[in-house]
Amino acid sequence: MWQDLKPIGRSPESGGYRRFAWTPADADCRSWFQAQAETRGLTYEQDRNGNQWAWLGDPTQGDAVVTGSHLDSVPDGGPFDGPLGVVSAFAALDELRRRGAEFTKPLAIVNFGDEEGARFGLACVGSRLTAGQLTPQQAHKLRDADGITLAQAMERAGYDPEAIGPDPDRLARIGAFVELHIEQGRALDLTNNSVGIASAIWPHGRWRYDFRGEANHAGTTRLVDRRDPMLSYADTVLAARREAELAGAVATFGKIAVEPNGVNAIPSLVRGWLDSRAPDQATLDAVVEGIEKAARAYADRHGIELDVVRESFTPVVEFEHALRDEMARILTREGDKIPVLGTGAGHDAGILSGSIPTAMLFVRNPTGVSHSPAEYAAEDDCLAGVTALADVLEGLACR
Amino acid sequence: MWQDLKPIGRSPESGGYRRFAWTPADADCRSWFQAQAETRGLTYEQDRNGNQWAWLGDPTQGDAVVTGSHLDSVPDGGPFDGPLGVVSAFAALDELRRRGAEFTKPLAIVNFGDEEGARFGLACVGSRLTAGQLTPQQAHKLRDADGITLAQAMERAGYDPEAIGPDPDRLARIGAFVELHIEQGRALDLTNNSVGIASAIWPHGRWRYDFRGEANHAGTTRLVDRRDPMLSYADTVLAARREAELAGAVATFGKIAVEPNGVNAIPSLVRGWLDSRAPDQATLDAVVEGIEKAARAYADRHGIELDVVRESFTPVVEFEHALRDEMARILTREGDKIPVLGTGAGHDAGILSGSIPTAMLFVRNPTGVSHSPAEYAAEDDCLAGVTALADVLEGLACR
Repeated sequence: MWQDLKPIGRSPESGGYRRFAWTPADADCRSWFQAQAETRGLTYEQDRNGNQWAWLGDPTQGDAVVTGSHLDSVPDGGPFDGPLGVVSAFAALDELRRRGAEFTKPLAIVNFGDEEGARFGLACVGSRLTAGQLTPQQAHKLRDADGITLAQAMERAGYDPEAIGPDPDRLARIGAFVELHIEQGRALDLTNNSVGIASAIWPHGRWRYDFRGEANHAGTTRLVDRRDPMLSYADTVLAARREAELAGAVATFGKIAVEPNGVNAIPSLVRGWLDSRAPDQATLDAVVEGIEKAARAYADRHGIELDVVRESFTPVVEFEHALRDEMARILTREGDKIPVLGTGAGHDAGILSGSIPTAMLFVRNPTGVSHSPAEYAAEDDCLAGVTALADVLEGLACR
Repeated sequence: MWQDLKPIGRSPESGGYRRFAWTPADADCRSWFQAQAETRGLTYEQDRNGNQWAWLGDPTQGDAVVTGSHLDSVPDGGPFDGPLGVVSAFAALDELRRRGAEFTKPLAIVNFGDEEGARFGLACVGSRLTAGQLTPQQAHKLRDADGITLAQAMERAGYDPEAIGPDPDRLARIGAFVELHIEQGRALDLTNNSVGIASAIWPHGRWRYDFRGEANHAGTTRLVDRRDPMLSYADTVLAARREAELAGAVATFGKIAVEPNGVNAIPSLVRGWLDSRAPDQATLDAVVEGIEKAARAYADRHGIELDVVRESFTPVVEFEHALRDEMARILTREGDKIPVLGTGAGHDAGILSGSIPTAMLFVRNPTGVSHSPAEYAAEDDCLAGVTALADVLEGLACR
């Protein structure tokens, strides 16, 4: 199952994955999902927002137990972030069938579309649309780096962009959603556990910083005559690190776009994106305000205009306590308590937690590396994840 | 004449020009040049390196007087940098014909290819090849941002990349080359002159800085576990400004490429290009060494690998004193001496000065803005430039 998925959307240069929404690589991932569903005799369907579902039992019965994750990737992402949750879902179903489990509730495996937001800049588009947290009007306006709108991209991939929108009936038929995911930190490894349960997702957001100066010749313009936005950007990158360190948060400038981006031209525009996250809302507010204040001071000093736009934001997500406790009970073996941990990463499970009971399982990441071709999980830990997920599904759907 | 050239390669969003070597916009500029030559009954030819020539008189006679510049642009460049020299050359010829000038030497107007180096990263490719300062083997390997080699780009534009190479016989038939160019600073405006003569071009070069760290998730990777190359880059941008200020030089980071360039990914690679220039070699060496030393210290502190590669370098160019003095004599009117000034910008005239007598005329730039859609020259100053160029050509070619 893994082997078929492995080459799809993989860059021969970096070894990383480039599975972006509504691209040919994305279509290949979707074909793989449909084939896995059909091989197992599951009922395959694609919902109005392009999320894929594979059903065991009657989708309309209600109180369904759903598991799965996403197959898309960040630019040069690793093989596990997303796909591990989908592959483990199919593997857990295979395991339950081997055990001869008898299902009293419908079970579904899901692949949510465009989780990473790598192409259109907004994460979790598939689950946001379904949960009504993103309107079709807002979604249609999203553009990729080439100016192609989400609606155009969907059309080119053979889908109907007019069909997208909230899907409350579908959500109403789901009793619990459990997403398995590789941990994107080293907490499990530091405590020597293969699997853990998520407690909460840190509040997090993305802010776009537009520093506008004056394009000019890099050879002939005196330093005193310059309005170079790269200087304000550089000062702000360093300020973001300082503010995050002081607060125990994280802040990152990882994406940049420069105009005209010529070796011998002072830029007219440096656009940088800030990603920041913190354990609680007050801390995040303090960090984000501190960075913007510093950036405005630098911009003023260099004669630079600065616009700061919040592009997305997700408040703190506490996963449902009853489901979390039930999972902890199922997974407690011989008195060994399973660890419960918070995370700085966003997930479809976080989006859906506003509508239905959701929970997450994490699988150990020995290096903590994520969003990189070097992302890695050991086979034993992946198998322990499948077993844990099978146990949870059996406990929830077969009782 | 200006009106036909104006729309070619102009971006409707920025109003700036994007005339890059061997693109359709470049081909349109070349067609314009050929049409101007043919309209005037000049002998048109394109040399082995794709430079265009329009001859009045016998090209093989020797001791020719040549004028012209380039038609390509930086990304979002202004309308004058390059084209003013070519348009003024045709206009000066028209003026001399109106005066009834009798030529004793052949006259040529030239458009050098790929002066800005916007696409393949090396400036003055056309004149460098002709002067033997760039070998065909080196040129063939140049690649644009999409990985297309110069050889492939030439082929796609219908030219033979195997033909390129040094052209000493052509240079041997040239007695003087005079390039008219918009000033890329405010020296003429500060002294209230329309036209000036170039004394020298500052030594200048381009250096590529590759900061390599470790790609990772921007939300879940603790600050202490990060190796974020954006921090070292930011420190280096600020160090470059400090070093240049101290030395009375210029240093600019205007172009950047980031991998993977995702909002929620710590970069694995930040590649920045440094452009630096100074009045003399010793000062430039001190600035460039100071920046690299600072960058290495920052990189070590952040666990970043740093490679610095010098991509191009041009030593100081002193234009030929005899030709410069002759032009100053021609252009001295009623005892008013014409200003003689140095510049930080590279030009084809600088490349050719190693092979043949060359000189430059500058036309006033009231704002000093260059390499920007806002680049501007007043019509009166442009006409004064044409008159001065006509006077010089008459003095050199009709005596």
